[in-house]
Amino acid sequence: MKLYDFYRSSAAYRVRIALGMKGIAAERAFVHLRHGAQRGDDYLAINPHGLVPALVTDEGDVLKQSLAIIEWLDETFPEPPFLPHAPVERARVRAIALGIACDIHPLNNLRVLQYLKGTFGLSEAQRNGWYKYWIDVGFEALDKELAGDRATGTFCHGDTPTLADICLVPQIANARRFEVDLTPYPTLTRIDSACAALPAFDAALPARQPDAE
Amino acid sequence: MKLYDFYRSSAAYRVRIALGMKGIAAERAFVHLRHGAQRGDDYLAINPHGLVPALVTDEGDVLKQSLAIIEWLDETFPEPPFLPHAPVERARVRAIALGIACDIHPLNNLRVLQYLKGTFGLSEAQRNGWYKYWIDVGFEALDKELAGDRATGTFCHGDTPTLADICLVPQIANARRFEVDLTPYPTLTRIDSACAALPAFDAALPARQPDAE
Repeated sequence: MKLYDFYRSSAAYRVRIALGMKGIAAERAFVHLRHGAQRGDDYLAINPHGLVPALVTDEGDVLKQSLAIIEWLDETFPEPPFLPHAPVERARVRAIALGIACDIHPLNNLRVLQYLKGTFGLSEAQRNGWYKYWIDVGFEALDKELAGDRATGTFCHGDTPTLADICLVPQIANARRFEVDLTPYPTLTRIDSACAALPAFDAALPARQPDAE
Repeated sequence: MKLYDFYRSSAAYRVRIALGMKGIAAERAFVHLRHGAQRGDDYLAINPHGLVPALVTDEGDVLKQSLAIIEWLDETFPEPPFLPHAPVERARVRAIALGIACDIHPLNNLRVLQYLKGTFGLSEAQRNGWYKYWIDVGFEALDKELAGDRATGTFCHGDTPTLADICLVPQIANARRFEVDLTPYPTLTRIDSACAALPAFDAALPARQPDAE
């Protein structure tokens, strides 16, 4: 198995955590997003969307989109599971994951920030304002939701990590990098700390990757 | 079952299609996004994220996030399936769906366009430029990917509609509303036409909803 990765990509970070939880040591290739390697012909031949991550299976299939890759890992290597058993609980976990992956992260990724700068000519302060606004909108609702739901445990759902935690931790790391004040989100930071104690989450940290700068 | 809906919401449109395909007639409640009903206390008590859709099950569970709702529907009402059987094919279908739901739609939804106008003071022409840019980036790669893959059939994956088509059709409808030129995407428009012939897709059209203006 081979992961196309970039240390700072939140979406790749999710897949690194997931691979670690399943105990899979994938081969790695690094696609330097800030240098534009994702738009090079070599990488576009692998993923025409020019996005990381991509995971090449041992059979040679190229899987794209972090959540699709993680669901595939879970279906192919069932232990430990990333989702609970009951459909309504699975829906809760997926909704937390998608709330981050669809409603927070896409607004804050590199290509969007580059568009705001390059095409609209927005200042760094304006771009940071945009960044923090969407983090706050998403985290405020999520913290409240998790804090008020008995299904929340040590982790986002119960006392074992799930797909929801796999998405939460990279988003919190990203928010920290942009110096977002996380004190209004005590439930999210409590869960983040619980995850940080687990080897798979620790090993997936951006700073621990071979391509980290 | 009760769907919190808004005729123009692409995410709610996905769930309308999915319910129709499963032959489920859900009760409906309409949350007028342009009037800000999603930020009212009544709706925030149902979904603290202030986003539609939400689906309340017959057991009273509130499900959020369109893709989580659709996966729940598929797990709970298996026929007809929204995903193929083999994990690698499921990953392909989910990746197409997520490419739309994470990388195109979130950049173009109402609250983002409102931020660009209200906070950055961008003109309608600038906002339309932004809108079309992200549609073109996503559709160009997706059309190329689908056209070059033998797994593509009458629909995004084979000859029966899947989760991928459920996400594609509302995004195309949205692009048409913003007068995006779709002629560069013949594979996407061909699949869209095939979907339009199916009753569940037709009945879910924004213009056919009771709250359409």
